[in-house]
Amino acid sequence: MPKLYISWDEYKKRLERLRNYLAEKKMEAALITNGTSIFYLTGFNHIVTERPAALLVPQDGELVFFGPLLEIDHIKLKTPLIKISKTYLDYPGIKHPMELFVEWIKELGLSNSHLGTDNPAGAAGTSGYTGPSLADKMKETKFTNIGSLFWSWRLVKSEEEVNLIRESAKWGNLAHQFLQDYTEPGLWDVEISQMATIEATRIMKKTLGLEWEATKGGSPCSAGFRGQVGKKSAIPHAIGTNTVIKEGDVLVTGAGADIGGYGSELERTMIVGKPSNKQKKLFDIMCKAQEAAITALKPGNTCADVDKAANEVFHKAGVESLVRHHTGHGIGLGGHEPPYLDQGNSQKLVPGMVVSIEPGIYEIGYAGFRHSDTLVVTEDGCEILTYYPRDIEYLTIL
Amino acid sequence: MPKLYISWDEYKKRLERLRNYLAEKKMEAALITNGTSIFYLTGFNHIVTERPAALLVPQDGELVFFGPLLEIDHIKLKTPLIKISKTYLDYPGIKHPMELFVEWIKELGLSNSHLGTDNPAGAAGTSGYTGPSLADKMKETKFTNIGSLFWSWRLVKSEEEVNLIRESAKWGNLAHQFLQDYTEPGLWDVEISQMATIEATRIMKKTLGLEWEATKGGSPCSAGFRGQVGKKSAIPHAIGTNTVIKEGDVLVTGAGADIGGYGSELERTMIVGKPSNKQKKLFDIMCKAQEAAITALKPGNTCADVDKAANEVFHKAGVESLVRHHTGHGIGLGGHEPPYLDQGNSQKLVPGMVVSIEPGIYEIGYAGFRHSDTLVVTEDGCEILTYYPRDIEYLTIL
Repeated sequence: MPKLYISWDEYKKRLERLRNYLAEKKMEAALITNGTSIFYLTGFNHIVTERPAALLVPQDGELVFFGPLLEIDHIKLKTPLIKISKTYLDYPGIKHPMELFVEWIKELGLSNSHLGTDNPAGAAGTSGYTGPSLADKMKETKFTNIGSLFWSWRLVKSEEEVNLIRESAKWGNLAHQFLQDYTEPGLWDVEISQMATIEATRIMKKTLGLEWEATKGGSPCSAGFRGQVGKKSAIPHAIGTNTVIKEGDVLVTGAGADIGGYGSELERTMIVGKPSNKQKKLFDIMCKAQEAAITALKPGNTCADVDKAANEVFHKAGVESLVRHHTGHGIGLGGHEPPYLDQGNSQKLVPGMVVSIEPGIYEIGYAGFRHSDTLVVTEDGCEILTYYPRDIEYLTIL
Repeated sequence: MPKLYISWDEYKKRLERLRNYLAEKKMEAALITNGTSIFYLTGFNHIVTERPAALLVPQDGELVFFGPLLEIDHIKLKTPLIKISKTYLDYPGIKHPMELFVEWIKELGLSNSHLGTDNPAGAAGTSGYTGPSLADKMKETKFTNIGSLFWSWRLVKSEEEVNLIRESAKWGNLAHQFLQDYTEPGLWDVEISQMATIEATRIMKKTLGLEWEATKGGSPCSAGFRGQVGKKSAIPHAIGTNTVIKEGDVLVTGAGADIGGYGSELERTMIVGKPSNKQKKLFDIMCKAQEAAITALKPGNTCADVDKAANEVFHKAGVESLVRHHTGHGIGLGGHEPPYLDQGNSQKLVPGMVVSIEPGIYEIGYAGFRHSDTLVVTEDGCEILTYYPRDIEYLTIL
């Protein structure tokens, strides 16, 4: 059976690490409100809404979930690590959930203590939520913000994590191949995206079998364009297109899949019809910048070194005015996460970091050019986890 | 041509309202970091990332966008209302974006002033972002949090907004019809969702024509199950299924579409095969609770009255232990937004509020039952915007 989820052993190690941290810092417990952090610690993923939810991790003792009643059975289904839940019917409720959070912390004997938290307000605060701040209501409790802890722990991936991202890259590759197969002039790009997405998702499911399921809403495996079609390919974060694909268009794609909550990023520049000399030139410069960045991705170098390697190629080619963003970002449970491969980031690269490498150039009114690959830093360099072809011959739609 | 977007006149009225508010409160400008609020004010929607972005709205004078360079051409494409952008190459940058925000506010002559903001930190702070707080760096400036303002303005919808939601409901209906048509034992629910989604999205686009485009990533029109299939239908916020649909399953669906950034919510309980007496009984109770809540949705009543009307039906039927959440929520630019139809919410209902009505009952290990409709409060009651059949005969898959 393929490994499609983080093992319970690894979740336990993460919790152990947190408990050791609490002991070291003399904190009696941690109160975590970020949905992704709760998933990272326990394997329980939930839809974050206006309803406050938090995981209480005592230095010693059972985990306790605080949250809305609608999650109580969901937790039991998803994780053996949370055995106690304290719930309220709904938000705002006859008694506000934050009043209950205060009572529950008192009941657990933690009111006169030192709590680490990612959010002293006690609630994620989305969707128009209003309520008193937990820290304001508990003056007898010392709160210390430890939210950055999880970002630093997620920075370097374990072998299990890298393997899930590797598996994700495989299904992103399939979805992208269908996307390319189905791309032709006259079709709306969203139609093509959805045809590729359904085909790849169906095959992924049939291949991985009954054990595999998505951890998030939306399509668990997908490929698409998002908005970078034709002239709009020059807008890196374009959203939506209202036209159809036509001969001469430059397209910038994206594909990925959800394996146990982890994702990968695969993006390609495709050209519809015989590439012009200008298209070939810009495509080629972009590829050289990506290669230079990949060469620079190794332990000992900094994040800035990788960005500078790409920018040097753009500078030498005289196209630095076409740059609109830095070279890449970390990827894992989040689509964007640290480390950021940016000229201003002096963080050292370490084996196990997983990043996108995606330098791009964008000529407004004409087209944009960017490939994105997902790579893991290794002991002596890096390994490319996404393996879709990068050359213009393959990526030309004729 | 169908009206698919909020008019520029309405955007201008929203900005005028904000400017009047600033004048009244003696604030020189507003600094808005929430992506949805920026869209609400200007029609410019962007992907919120670790890169800080904000809209500066002076009491008098031109709007100014602060943000990453990759949005500079995107803004020009999307809104005529923002003519000035101040940008940085990327995050974290050689100079941190928050340092630049301080400089830009000074350049605009606003450092010794009173600023309203939805976020004194100056940045949305997602994806592992770190940086100094803007308010901490600008001790000479008075910051007042006005974030709740937009939630209160969004509470009551304009005629244009209701019409977009009405149009959204139409395409949600089509997607749901395909979902029901395609549902059959032996298929994985995600396959059915994606077949319905692609079919409805394609027809929606062909019908609405070249003018229409999505404002968000993901599918602009969709129908699906998310996770509420068979026994898991008893988990209101289930995510993912790993099995296939089979005879006897209860299914809880969802469908909607993006029209100019506005959405609607349509959910139905469907039964695969001839319904059992128990299924019929619980289905019937749920329908009666929804009817009671709809009857209570009228000006003069409070949000609590609507929730209590549904709960009274559940109480009389002896199933209140199966309730897992309140009766509904506001909907518009956000999938969940105020007002919340909750027994603890004494807010008065006002014409123009748009809400979901979706009381549900959930028997663990057996099944869950919930319909959700989108309704607008009118002068003398309410109007149901979603019109998919609600009866068990129609919703039985044979």
